[in-house]
Amino acid sequence: MHHCYFNGNIMPADEVKLHHTDLGLLRGYGLFDYFRTYNGKPFQWDWYWERYERSAKLLRIPNPIDKEKAHEVVMKLIGLSGLSDCSFRFVLTGGYAHDSMSMKEPNLMIISEDLHANIPHEYETGIKVITYEFVRDIPEIKSTDYKHLLILQPDIKAAGAQDVLYHKNGDISELSRSNVFIFKNDVLITPDENALKGITRRTVLELAKPHFKIEIRPVSLQELLNADEVFTTSTTKRVLPITTVDDQKINGGVVGKNSKFLLGLINDLIKNW
Amino acid sequence: MHHCYFNGNIMPADEVKLHHTDLGLLRGYGLFDYFRTYNGKPFQWDWYWERYERSAKLLRIPNPIDKEKAHEVVMKLIGLSGLSDCSFRFVLTGGYAHDSMSMKEPNLMIISEDLHANIPHEYETGIKVITYEFVRDIPEIKSTDYKHLLILQPDIKAAGAQDVLYHKNGDISELSRSNVFIFKNDVLITPDENALKGITRRTVLELAKPHFKIEIRPVSLQELLNADEVFTTSTTKRVLPITTVDDQKINGGVVGKNSKFLLGLINDLIKNW
Repeated sequence: MHHCYFNGNIMPADEVKLHHTDLGLLRGYGLFDYFRTYNGKPFQWDWYWERYERSAKLLRIPNPIDKEKAHEVVMKLIGLSGLSDCSFRFVLTGGYAHDSMSMKEPNLMIISEDLHANIPHEYETGIKVITYEFVRDIPEIKSTDYKHLLILQPDIKAAGAQDVLYHKNGDISELSRSNVFIFKNDVLITPDENALKGITRRTVLELAKPHFKIEIRPVSLQELLNADEVFTTSTTKRVLPITTVDDQKINGGVVGKNSKFLLGLINDLIKNW
Repeated sequence: MHHCYFNGNIMPADEVKLHHTDLGLLRGYGLFDYFRTYNGKPFQWDWYWERYERSAKLLRIPNPIDKEKAHEVVMKLIGLSGLSDCSFRFVLTGGYAHDSMSMKEPNLMIISEDLHANIPHEYETGIKVITYEFVRDIPEIKSTDYKHLLILQPDIKAAGAQDVLYHKNGDISELSRSNVFIFKNDVLITPDENALKGITRRTVLELAKPHFKIEIRPVSLQELLNADEVFTTSTTKRVLPITTVDDQKINGGVVGKNSKFLLGLINDLIKNW
């Protein structure tokens, strides 16, 4: 059974409730982070922790837990879950405010969750995304602000797509919850601006370094549409090919060899994590 | 004692708690509205309701209550409060989602609250605001997204200011939770773009019409700094003069006669509401 660490106490996840004056709820003043374990061990724990702390600092929400204690909590929650691997969600908000404005004590939840179920055939066929002109507010922070994605859900479904690719002023930035890469002439290219720097993005860049020339720079939507391969990276997706953008096929709609190669590298890393 | 209508049930406000999977909390997928009563009667109820419904429609969250029922709830909550006048907060979120993404049933809360306490001398001296380059995401929707205001709170306090004025590309839009107007040569001017259209803004425009030439158009920050008078309008503030912007005094730091006149008009309207 999944449990949740809530401000110092561990309780069944189903029982965790927040008072309606929570600033995350009333004012969108909250952040989260999300990672998973492989072989019972948190994947890239140091990097996720670093990002969580950075989000808290930039949002100016005091982080009430230190790294060692948080790791201890995570390991305890895996044990309580009875599962060999879990996902974990950290949610940190501005806490309760009876005047709906003044922060006193933050609320921190660390919740174990079932692993996200991937759809195997998507790795064979690639996914479809729609495009949308938008940049997330303070994109470098993993805030809880995903309202645009929720608003766009019916449009994504109506298009038979799996996700949305954001672009602005001609340049792409990220998908709704994952990063984007392209291959052109065996050069791996990914944008750096207006995107949350994903931990899987960082992992892929490190894995790719010995094998490909890498360019981290602005990428136009046009360049993406003309790429040899396009893929997205995230904790749950690892390296997932994108073969259709709106109604246009990338590389004739066929998953490319470099994307497969990178997926293989990350799968190897995970196997022995 | 304040009570809350929560998905059909009325309970003491202190007891209202939401499960941590609420999409308002996890994904910032929520909206609110806020109004008050005068003489026990909701002020501009028709206009607030219209805005609430519009926010829900634009965020694509189904509104689970109709206008008559909502009014009935509001009147019941005033009765339960034992107070002659209250504020009311409607909060509508995407509801609980165990996958943290898929909306099923929304969560609606209607909460009675104490009236916001105004500071009388601010009407005599005017307030100070700091400026910040920013446009709210989907500003026409009263979403729960106020993270920038929360982030800026320490800066506002450090400047000895009461609020923040947003501007972008040279033009002003709104304060953190209220609209902005200027007077120049007895012409009343207010921006129309990138701002939530406040109900008090609408009320003031209606009250001012017989007395002043009105211009609704882009207003530059420079124009505001050179204005004869600046004031802000909101449910809690009514017509509140702004006499200092960053370190610059407006009109020598003295509250102007037209602002006082408009405050008088709205006070008269309220008296007989």
